[in-house]
Amino acid sequence: MIRVIYPGTFDPPNNGHLNVISRAVKIFDHIEIVIAVNPEKKCFFTPRERFEMMEKLVKIHENVNVHLWEGLIVDFAQKMEANVILRGVRALSDFDYEFELSMMNKALNADIETIFLPTDKKYFVLRSSAIKEVAMFNGDISEMVPDLVAKALKLKLQRP
Amino acid sequence: MIRVIYPGTFDPPNNGHLNVISRAVKIFDHIEIVIAVNPEKKCFFTPRERFEMMEKLVKIHENVNVHLWEGLIVDFAQKMEANVILRGVRALSDFDYEFELSMMNKALNADIETIFLPTDKKYFVLRSSAIKEVAMFNGDISEMVPDLVAKALKLKLQRP
Amino acid sequence: MIRVIYPGTFDPPNNGHLNVISRAVKIFDHIEIVIAVNPEKKCFFTPRERFEMMEKLVKIHENVNVHLWEGLIVDFAQKMEANVILRGVRALSDFDYEFELSMMNKALNADIETIFLPTDKKYFVLRSSAIKEVAMFNGDISEMVPDLVAKALKLKLQRP
Amino acid sequence: MIRVIYPGTFDPPNNGHLNVISRAVKIFDHIEIVIAVNPEKKCFFTPRERFEMMEKLVKIHENVNVHLWEGLIVDFAQKMEANVILRGVRALSDFDYEFELSMMNKALNADIETIFLPTDKKYFVLRSSAIKEVAMFNGDISEMVPDLVAKALKLKLQRP
Amino acid sequence: MIRVIYPGTFDPPNNGHLNVISRAVKIFDHIEIVIAVNPEKKCFFTPRERFEMMEKLVKIHENVNVHLWEGLIVDFAQKMEANVILRGVRALSDFDYEFELSMMNKALNADIETIFLPTDKKYFVLRSSAIKEVAMFNGDISEMVPDLVAKALKLKLQRP
Amino acid sequence: MIRVIYPGTFDPPNNGHLNVISRAVKIFDHIEIVIAVNPEKKCFFTPRERFEMMEKLVKIHENVNVHLWEGLIVDFAQKMEANVILRGVRALSDFDYEFELSMMNKALNADIETIFLPTDKKYFVLRSSAIKEVAMFNGDISEMVPDLVAKALKLKLQRP
Repeated sequence: MIRVIYPGTFDPPNNGHLNVISRAVKIFDHIEIVIAVNPEKKCFFTPRERFEMMEKLVKIHENVNVHLWEGLIVDFAQKMEANVILRGVRALSDFDYEFELSMMNKALNADIETIFLPTDKKYFVLRSSAIKEVAMFNGDISEMVPDLVAKALKLKLQRP
Repeated sequence: MIRVIYPGTFDPPNNGHLNVISRAVKIFDHIEIVIAVNPEKKCFFTPRERFEMMEKLVKIHENVNVHLWEGLIVDFAQKMEANVILRGVRALSDFDYEFELSMMNKALNADIETIFLPTDKKYFVLRSSAIKEVAMFNGDISEMVPDLVAKALKLKLQRP
Repeated sequence: MIRVIYPGTFDPPNNGHLNVISRAVKIFDHIEIVIAVNPEKKCFFTPRERFEMMEKLVKIHENVNVHLWEGLIVDFAQKMEANVILRGVRALSDFDYEFELSMMNKALNADIETIFLPTDKKYFVLRSSAIKEVAMFNGDISEMVPDLVAKALKLKLQRP
Repeated sequence: MIRVIYPGTFDPPNNGHLNVISRAVKIFDHIEIVIAVNPEKKCFFTPRERFEMMEKLVKIHENVNVHLWEGLIVDFAQKMEANVILRGVRALSDFDYEFELSMMNKALNADIETIFLPTDKKYFVLRSSAIKEVAMFNGDISEMVPDLVAKALKLKLQRP
Repeated sequence: MIRVIYPGTFDPPNNGHLNVISRAVKIFDHIEIVIAVNPEKKCFFTPRERFEMMEKLVKIHENVNVHLWEGLIVDFAQKMEANVILRGVRALSDFDYEFELSMMNKALNADIETIFLPTDKKYFVLRSSAIKEVAMFNGDISEMVPDLVAKALKLKLQRP
Repeated sequence: MIRVIYPGTFDPPNNGHLNVISRAVKIFDHIEIVIAVNPEKKCFFTPRERFEMMEKLVKIHENVNVHLWEGLIVDFAQKMEANVILRGVRALSDFDYEFELSMMNKALNADIETIFLPTDKKYFVLRSSAIKEVAMFNGDISEMVPDLVAKALKLKLQRP
């Protein structure tokens, strides 16, 4: 049985993330989505908000769980008895960073493997930071994020 | 008649930007320079200052106008009835980001094309953020920015 | 009036090339497609075959002409009184090579500009050499090349 | 049960390949190694030689099989009822090519996923073509390939 | 006699930096380590703390000195009558930035050369910002930084 | 005393190579230029021709010698009691390959360091293979190679 960790900031979850998840469930037995909490990193949505959005979005999949974690991902993996970290890679620029991150994680725990799943072409442009900028300027993000995320973004952007 | 949008932060305009403009006027009928205003992004010069510098620098060119715009570039393009966005690309690192941006803009408005003009070798090093750092340490920037920008930088850096 | 050169090996023309052409005709007044002939480079189709396929494929566009040229592209551009070379770029790996080529062309003739048009996401995978390999193994190339090219490939691969 | 295809030219198999295999067997239930045969591609070892070396090298692993295949990898995957292709990626330059290849395979069969496993730092330099060059000049390749491959290389290089 | 400048932020010094220094002393006669002070850049350790750590770490090497400098590196080089800047490069992503920086320095002083020393594979993952994050989450950094740095990090992270 | 090896194919030597050499002689005490002979690699000029051209081009420099070598560069370095290999890097694409090569050489002989000298902007486009193509089509290469190389190229291209 292969249990896989899918970590990320998910600020907010977008259609690219969901695409990775829907493809990964066909390959692996269990997917443990980890919303990484880093007090040093300024996020648009609170950890709790990101957790709740993600939970609603993946409840259609059996064997997919969502977690909040403030700590090293390798420590979470060990706690979950999972030895594979899954990362979606959209393009070369992503890969560079991801490659380094995977080596860092290997240095921290040699038993944990990172595997990369290339993003579908349709979702190449979906970087959450860019989506937030488009939303801020009232651009159409309906193809980029699920409905509930679009609404949450709109609501949060209106508040002063 | 081809009307082209040339968007950027231009904080401040540098000789690389002016080189792109002087080459683009030989290719396209109209160049609409757009100084992008993003309240989330901290700039050294105010939008008004950037606008005024750019206006003075391009008044030698007929058919080149300068605009301030707070919003999506594709919305500005539509408003101007322009269907081409022009971007200067200095090197690989630029291109990566620019490629993604062009796909995002295409996702927002499929009728708008982005075309890239490679920077002349002479201007490879001109990243506005680096120029500001050089100026801060009293380095010689006379080959990097026009005189009026060099003066404005010096003036602004002296103020407490 | 902007006359643009679109050079390539086109061995064979694929849907990515045609996509670039159909977008470029909306931007530029004239497109001069140049099938580059290089006796040192081994091609699958003869120059004549590539020329005839391309001619049939672009006859739907007014103001698009097809040429065969054995020589430097900058010399062809000068002969045609064109000062812009158009190149489609599919991804980072392309860009690297294209950037260098554009600098070489600028070194040979400083008046000639190269502009890049990013390939539509749909056509990212279309590298003519890969298409030929797929065809060789009887893979389905109907989404990658126009019908007449698919037939020509099949025919040529059958001949001993 | 996840059956994974691990395709390659393996000309010859090197320690980097074996490292990928030994890590993959801990993640996946079955690994089907496919030695790709392409009559257009000139190899140093014959398909049969590569097959025999690989068979000997992986016989320590249960659930790992070796195959020869002249055709599209997606066709082999379908025949084997496998829906995952595994690729080792050593560095950025690899990834670029691998990314494109994965998109091509997805275009040929949308049900087949490609996943990437980053090479261990220790094996970054192991490109089979470079190993052959080192062997040709009598360099020490004992850390780069298994003993039986080192001997086969030496033997083959001596023959006129 | 070749005097070489080795500039950096060193926030904090890590084993990768020390590896570069220990290899450089075998090649060059004098190494002048420069801890760059930039009031605009937020650092974890104060300039004085970084200076003191580095001094202790390199006192084993004769002909290696440590300096603090708030200004352009080319100005420091000139003051020291050094005409070579040494930079360690870990991977492609580093190189891109380093290449641009070297061109900027050349633009500021054409007599000063930058040379790059590739990082040993063992130290590929050592980016000081990542090390700080690992330390913040109580990860094991004993292979990434010298003891005295590990202690200083721990101490500083505990303080409120 | 630092003795540096500067290896390459030099088919033919170009102005970029000479620029690297003229800058390296200011940094290092001795430069040993090595013309790598690889019977598997098809060159335009014979090893002897490349050797003679290079010898004439560098005779203005004291302490620069030219060698022919068929074998591993690390073996040549050891024979010369040199422990530094110098490589010019023109751009990102070069660096990728060079980085890997330097790791391979380190694997073969851990005592030998590779250092990279970035090419001057003026010589970014000078890839010997491209220069030969330009020469073949009678393009102006007078800014790309020294006179004696331009003549040798012309002469060799005329012969049937």
